[in-house]
Amino acid sequence: MGSKRLDRRTLLKAAMIGPGAAVAAGGEALAAPPRITGLPDISWRLQSSFPATLDTIYGAAEAMARSAAILTGGRFRIEIAPPDRYVPAGQALDAVSAGSVQALQTCSYYHVDRDPAFAFGSALPFGLNARMQDAWIVEGGGGPLLDGLYAQYGLTSLVAGNTGAQMGGWFRKEIRSLPEMAGLKMRIAGLGGMVLARLGVEPQELAIESAYAALDDGWLDAAEWSGPYEDEQLGFYKVAPYYYYPGWWDGGPSIHLLINRAAFEALPETYKEALRASAAQARHEMQARYDVRNNTAIRSLIDKGVQLRPFPTDILEAAYKASFELYAELAAAHPRFKAIYEPWKGFRDQIYQSFRVAEYSFESFGFTQQAKGH
Amino acid sequence: MGSKRLDRRTLLKAAMIGPGAAVAAGGEALAAPPRITGLPDISWRLQSSFPATLDTIYGAAEAMARSAAILTGGRFRIEIAPPDRYVPAGQALDAVSAGSVQALQTCSYYHVDRDPAFAFGSALPFGLNARMQDAWIVEGGGGPLLDGLYAQYGLTSLVAGNTGAQMGGWFRKEIRSLPEMAGLKMRIAGLGGMVLARLGVEPQELAIESAYAALDDGWLDAAEWSGPYEDEQLGFYKVAPYYYYPGWWDGGPSIHLLINRAAFEALPETYKEALRASAAQARHEMQARYDVRNNTAIRSLIDKGVQLRPFPTDILEAAYKASFELYAELAAAHPRFKAIYEPWKGFRDQIYQSFRVAEYSFESFGFTQQAKGH
Repeated sequence: MGSKRLDRRTLLKAAMIGPGAAVAAGGEALAAPPRITGLPDISWRLQSSFPATLDTIYGAAEAMARSAAILTGGRFRIEIAPPDRYVPAGQALDAVSAGSVQALQTCSYYHVDRDPAFAFGSALPFGLNARMQDAWIVEGGGGPLLDGLYAQYGLTSLVAGNTGAQMGGWFRKEIRSLPEMAGLKMRIAGLGGMVLARLGVEPQELAIESAYAALDDGWLDAAEWSGPYEDEQLGFYKVAPYYYYPGWWDGGPSIHLLINRAAFEALPETYKEALRASAAQARHEMQARYDVRNNTAIRSLIDKGVQLRPFPTDILEAAYKASFELYAELAAAHPRFKAIYEPWKGFRDQIYQSFRVAEYSFESFGFTQQAKGH
Repeated sequence: MGSKRLDRRTLLKAAMIGPGAAVAAGGEALAAPPRITGLPDISWRLQSSFPATLDTIYGAAEAMARSAAILTGGRFRIEIAPPDRYVPAGQALDAVSAGSVQALQTCSYYHVDRDPAFAFGSALPFGLNARMQDAWIVEGGGGPLLDGLYAQYGLTSLVAGNTGAQMGGWFRKEIRSLPEMAGLKMRIAGLGGMVLARLGVEPQELAIESAYAALDDGWLDAAEWSGPYEDEQLGFYKVAPYYYYPGWWDGGPSIHLLINRAAFEALPETYKEALRASAAQARHEMQARYDVRNNTAIRSLIDKGVQLRPFPTDILEAAYKASFELYAELAAAHPRFKAIYEPWKGFRDQIYQSFRVAEYSFESFGFTQQAKGH
């Protein structure tokens, strides 16, 4: 994009052949919104699915609340609380649907037991990376589809973060091929666990703190949580030294605010915009923090003797096949899943192709050269 | 990240070993900012380096202004204008430094003739992709370095967009190897042009509308602008059918607002936050729109007979080598360039490595499978 000056007239002419033709040639003053005075004091309760110790993600909710307060001169206050503070974590979605808590910072796919279509809000195995997920929601048709889903539960949503592609978890022993997965007990939930079950793994939905002890005494063989920064905090490297990648079930999960729909609709437009804009800030900053902190943490883990391993190709291939078989079955059984799956899959296949052109070739060449020491 | 519930107590304990230990275990109410009344009416002028026909980028500035107005009850108004409206485009940076125009929507690297360090705000050949660029600025040390640079010119800045990796431009003839680049006249500016000059190309800084005619009558051999969506609007495919990738000089250029520093500092905190938050929205939405629109456009271009070609490896290798030789020379000649280059290069090398683990392996496997028709 190497021009310092463009001739507007010529570009206007050029644009007549393209999709830009419908856009007004700009410069006119924007219509002023009505001046607003006397905004109400509103106080919301936001419960997070994540404890405050996970500072990248929980801190993003705190930053959002801070931003919303600044933007409204202190009139719109959002109190942030960790799991179980306002309501038991397992009842948080219902509490937000009912409006006793106004918002939940969560991963949409934590709620697939309720409705498998909730997976599309976050990530599906071999689905979208973080940027594709945003593209799908903002401009690729995903936003209205998700909004229709959440509306069924009295909810609306804002994307308010992403972790990027996660790691594939911690294994006590090295796994060299697909047959070695059979019978492994692995702590993993959701669609990733359902896919792994088709590969012979016995997925375990135990809480993360039980996983550490269970790995330590050998009852559990593997466990996954997130990426290097948070995984290092959780300490798994001390009991399961093989650290696999990628987390193919978590290629770029969005972090959402799920919000009581009536409460959101009742907000003054200024407060709605304050939520939207501060959620976008959270999205921007959370990803950046994960990327930098994961970079530091993966080096620290390697220094501690962690063995990084890519998943063997036969495992990835079997998981890929099992994933799309699972989606076909879910689509057959759940009309709401099907209604989102079909356009999602079309989007995913197309954007995989277009990312391969400039984006992926830029990275591939640079990564290869850098790895050679150039 | 497959847990629906976390035990907070255990995570707190686990966090004691990690960087999260310093973070307070949360849930307490956020301190309320002082309640603000009687905010002033403020009107700003923002000139864009881009014409309104480039609707993805220009539209992001309009959306920002709209958001800032909503957030301030109509009191903070930003008038958006295309190049040359308030001041001639070539004088826009000076006008913002002087404060006669408050803000410029631009690429920082359009101003490398002034100071080569401006390149770091956008992109350098074989530099950061879009997400790495955000990570560097938000959390990787780049933000303060850029702020120090811009302060020298009376400016401050906000990231307010990104295009993602761009294409490598349009060529009248197929280029099969490095020797065929020698003597080519190509419309390309900035550091990309300086690198190509070292490969024997004769970079031309002519305006984009002259490029079309010059390609048509054969005086010019090649021209680059951006990605498929905008390139299609500009019509180059009609006169130069070979479309090369990647744009290795534009791996993920930020779009910036460069803002008069004193004007920004004089804003009430609410208005500063309105700018920050609406810039983050612009960042989020612009990338999503480019990704979706580029996907549509590249299919349309192929339907029109465009020949997609990756740059031959010997060209990429020579360009890579020439780029880092150029940076060493710029660092030797320009202390401000050097002061940013050294930490930037360290960050770039490290984050290339960490992205190769989960992020790149996730994409590589998925893209390969999808390309096989799975």
